[in-house]
Amino acid sequence: MDKKKIILDCDPGHDDAVAILLAGKNPKLDLLGITVVAGNQTLENTQRNALNIVQCLGLDVSVYAGCRQPMIRKKMTAGDIHGESGLDGPVFEPLTRTLEPEHAVSYIVKTLIESDTPITMVTTGPMTNLGMAIRMEPRILDKIERIVLMGGAYTNGNVTPAAEFNIIADADAAYVCFTSGLPITMVGLDVTRKALCYPEIVERMDKVGNKASKLFVDLMKHFCKSQKEVFGWEGGPLHDPITIAYLIDPDVLTTKPMYTEIDIRSTQSYGRTNCDYFGYLKKEPTADVAIDIDVEKFWNMIEEGLHLYD
Amino acid sequence: MDKKKIILDCDPGHDDAVAILLAGKNPKLDLLGITVVAGNQTLENTQRNALNIVQCLGLDVSVYAGCRQPMIRKKMTAGDIHGESGLDGPVFEPLTRTLEPEHAVSYIVKTLIESDTPITMVTTGPMTNLGMAIRMEPRILDKIERIVLMGGAYTNGNVTPAAEFNIIADADAAYVCFTSGLPITMVGLDVTRKALCYPEIVERMDKVGNKASKLFVDLMKHFCKSQKEVFGWEGGPLHDPITIAYLIDPDVLTTKPMYTEIDIRSTQSYGRTNCDYFGYLKKEPTADVAIDIDVEKFWNMIEEGLHLYD
Amino acid sequence: MDKKKIILDCDPGHDDAVAILLAGKNPKLDLLGITVVAGNQTLENTQRNALNIVQCLGLDVSVYAGCRQPMIRKKMTAGDIHGESGLDGPVFEPLTRTLEPEHAVSYIVKTLIESDTPITMVTTGPMTNLGMAIRMEPRILDKIERIVLMGGAYTNGNVTPAAEFNIIADADAAYVCFTSGLPITMVGLDVTRKALCYPEIVERMDKVGNKASKLFVDLMKHFCKSQKEVFGWEGGPLHDPITIAYLIDPDVLTTKPMYTEIDIRSTQSYGRTNCDYFGYLKKEPTADVAIDIDVEKFWNMIEEGLHLYD
Amino acid sequence: MDKKKIILDCDPGHDDAVAILLAGKNPKLDLLGITVVAGNQTLENTQRNALNIVQCLGLDVSVYAGCRQPMIRKKMTAGDIHGESGLDGPVFEPLTRTLEPEHAVSYIVKTLIESDTPITMVTTGPMTNLGMAIRMEPRILDKIERIVLMGGAYTNGNVTPAAEFNIIADADAAYVCFTSGLPITMVGLDVTRKALCYPEIVERMDKVGNKASKLFVDLMKHFCKSQKEVFGWEGGPLHDPITIAYLIDPDVLTTKPMYTEIDIRSTQSYGRTNCDYFGYLKKEPTADVAIDIDVEKFWNMIEEGLHLYD
Repeated sequence: MDKKKIILDCDPGHDDAVAILLAGKNPKLDLLGITVVAGNQTLENTQRNALNIVQCLGLDVSVYAGCRQPMIRKKMTAGDIHGESGLDGPVFEPLTRTLEPEHAVSYIVKTLIESDTPITMVTTGPMTNLGMAIRMEPRILDKIERIVLMGGAYTNGNVTPAAEFNIIADADAAYVCFTSGLPITMVGLDVTRKALCYPEIVERMDKVGNKASKLFVDLMKHFCKSQKEVFGWEGGPLHDPITIAYLIDPDVLTTKPMYTEIDIRSTQSYGRTNCDYFGYLKKEPTADVAIDIDVEKFWNMIEEGLHLYD
Repeated sequence: MDKKKIILDCDPGHDDAVAILLAGKNPKLDLLGITVVAGNQTLENTQRNALNIVQCLGLDVSVYAGCRQPMIRKKMTAGDIHGESGLDGPVFEPLTRTLEPEHAVSYIVKTLIESDTPITMVTTGPMTNLGMAIRMEPRILDKIERIVLMGGAYTNGNVTPAAEFNIIADADAAYVCFTSGLPITMVGLDVTRKALCYPEIVERMDKVGNKASKLFVDLMKHFCKSQKEVFGWEGGPLHDPITIAYLIDPDVLTTKPMYTEIDIRSTQSYGRTNCDYFGYLKKEPTADVAIDIDVEKFWNMIEEGLHLYD
Repeated sequence: MDKKKIILDCDPGHDDAVAILLAGKNPKLDLLGITVVAGNQTLENTQRNALNIVQCLGLDVSVYAGCRQPMIRKKMTAGDIHGESGLDGPVFEPLTRTLEPEHAVSYIVKTLIESDTPITMVTTGPMTNLGMAIRMEPRILDKIERIVLMGGAYTNGNVTPAAEFNIIADADAAYVCFTSGLPITMVGLDVTRKALCYPEIVERMDKVGNKASKLFVDLMKHFCKSQKEVFGWEGGPLHDPITIAYLIDPDVLTTKPMYTEIDIRSTQSYGRTNCDYFGYLKKEPTADVAIDIDVEKFWNMIEEGLHLYD
Repeated sequence: MDKKKIILDCDPGHDDAVAILLAGKNPKLDLLGITVVAGNQTLENTQRNALNIVQCLGLDVSVYAGCRQPMIRKKMTAGDIHGESGLDGPVFEPLTRTLEPEHAVSYIVKTLIESDTPITMVTTGPMTNLGMAIRMEPRILDKIERIVLMGGAYTNGNVTPAAEFNIIADADAAYVCFTSGLPITMVGLDVTRKALCYPEIVERMDKVGNKASKLFVDLMKHFCKSQKEVFGWEGGPLHDPITIAYLIDPDVLTTKPMYTEIDIRSTQSYGRTNCDYFGYLKKEPTADVAIDIDVEKFWNMIEEGLHLYD
């Protein structure tokens, strides 16, 4: 079977780190490159975090730094969730891995234009790099098989009542992607909030007993603590890796095609993903929106993913 | 025990009709008057429907016609749900009851100003009449104990992905009410969607075997049919009477105080009730928002309510 | 010749005061009543100012107090222009005139419904009272000959770069009026800024030498001073009386029919009167917008108006 | 004296063509490159038009193609003004000049980063290329001396009542530029509408009698005809070259520092340049806005510019 070619665009971030971990060794996926964007933290932090993760896990994948701020609006970060570094928790060895010199947007454009086969774009942060690439070179649209994103919510948001972080952090970039005509799978808070990483999950993964499980445990201990402080729940929702899990085995999610619009013209509801769940607006669906997750399968996949490391 | 004085402002509407039914004979409530607004259907229809219901049930309560259209935006109705008359289903006797000559807004202002004790305002339609009354005579704010409304959603809407019908039909009026400083209980789709009136509920109520149960059954047969056609679910959600049930016995709902803003400046998300479920915005709560309903208790209350009629 | 019947809705305000002065004795106009709204100052201030003016001038016209705040948004006043009282400058005799007991909105509705002939509605403040009346009783639309308003600008505003005071103070009410289908004459800043009341104009009017000219001079001395402090120009623009001058002799203005929309959904440009000067949008005109003024004729009319008083 | 280094970003367009003509040979300016964007017409058209102009005039300057559509919103063109080709009127020789292979955004970034001295960015079309460059590589901000743009209006627009073409065509890009902190000179419709190219101007320029004057005359004949058809005035306003004239001799314009915001969140007023002419908002000025033009000087400069060609 051919491996599915993917580029992972992220802003690590604890749950981004687990997404890299899950994608890095999976035999069904060909992780072409990791592109980094400002989001959970500043670009300085997210690019360093990405390098630390690939070095810690011994992954052979290039990392490209992209945009430092959203396409249009002011920058926002999520320091309350991910800490000052954006990846508080694990202690990493001194960093020897380095960034590629090319800009992430240029890398995305070049890789897509030169590819003979379609590539799946996975975004687990603000969609700035992909939005910029689409506007720089619209011909890349023919080379993208699908966009699979963690972001949005058809119920309520987590930054404002209307909006989820990855979308509100650059709703304009999300708008570019959602109006591109490409197939889209939106993995939003509606399902990721069900993948709560309770202490027993952390304990279970700890038993795998390798460097990957150690990284997972170190990450989750900080993540669950800050989620509890901010949102009040036990066990933080492990948002980002669900995108990768879905690409490994689509059965982990139930999706429903919905007409979906990003609100970029509102002040109060800026960044809302207006998904027409009931088809009330009678418009053509524009995204496959995740409406349920098989949580048990998901944790099994995470455990299997950890085992792929030495 | 003193009865709770209420004015019921509605746009019947099948579920409004059940709200009137539930409020009309309850010993804990003193239904001072029914005021009518355009909403589910035009004012001509909703005022006739209100009169038909009070006549059919033999209720001794005055009915006042109010505003024909929203405070600012164009009129919208919900003909697909409630039919051409706004109350398709039951066949009524020739109408002998008549409207009071006074405008609903004037009635609301006068009744409140002249009252010695606070009155609870219940709205189960667009909030136009109450919004207009507050702007005509702001001194009425001192006489309103609480606003209990059916409307809004902190998850997804039912007219647009962002907005629920009663709010989007006059979001500006809702904005006036939600910024009034009054105590508010918001009973939104988040809970009313759980009160699904399945065929077995209709059968159960049918067994009560009086004029009230006959009216209920005739209403629900049409309502559930159109809900299924539009939204695809078995058993329509019986939105409006939950407000009255809550006033009879608050235990039927679980509520949570949330800072809540009505979006009136967006195009796409106009009418969204942005309820800060997580308290992320760190603002003072402005509404007690229903987050769960004891469905069994609710249906018991409906059944008991039917038994109060001959 | 039949007198033109008008109701003057205002928020005095220095230039409103001159509008009352100009309308009060003119043989071509039948000033049915003065209705007052919050705007340049609070309702307490504007209603007292209106009474002071009619008493000072000996006018036999009733004054009705209306809305204390805009239909939807928060209240704003213009203390920097009109001073703490809203009419700083003149010293008035102790007030013996009193308000009518009826609410301005009720008075407008009743007067229009009962009138056999159409009435012209003149507004020189926020359009709240008229907007509320239209929504309370839409049948009044058949009795309104035309709305003549001071407000708006197709060039730049005076409160924000986009918006003029009377419109931004209640853009929603303006929206109700501009979408009513009624004939409208909009007298905006585009022309009123040309009617600058230079010191030589004040001197000229002073020579009339009666109580009306004394009032005019006392008003203008304060008004021109504050205009200079805020906007930096010599001679304040005498906005409001141009509406009355136009009704006495339409030749004082050049108007052009334009499709005109009030922006009520923007944050930054809230309250802009988007007048399609060039007809670029190819929509039916909805207002006759003043594009030029015969300034000499206007000052002559003011002088003649002063002479009508003893 | 050192020449002022400029990059001219444009969407030719008749008046863009004259801007190139005016900049191409002026001894005070060093035209480093011409970058092209979609705007008055599609990118295919505007890039061909730019090449035709530099070939026709024998200019030794490279041309780079940039973005095909705005940063966020859908594409719009101005076919009614500039014709199907975007440069209807002149007949050009077969095209031998070719585009540089590099993307305009990459060229802008590289040229700025590598420059030892600051460069002035002149935009006479939608600001997409510059906005994209700023977001791709924010470090270029240190190398930009000033942005001089044709666009916007503090009075009324020419596409909607609120907005001018270059801004509304990509208001989001304009927002990026206007919030960049860079010095900005905004040459808007407020002054460009005064530079009307009447038939006598065309005749006067015709007398120069060289290839440049022939091009000017061929361009203006079509331009003035379409301006008359759309806007109804004799003599089209020669918008774009005023930016270049200003760089050659700033005395041609009177400017005033104003706090200026681009409205990107409104529907109806999207693209309005809200310039606080009166300083009413008490915010720091963000742009030097042209408020008057010395029309005679401008036409003299155009004539002198034509004479610089053989």
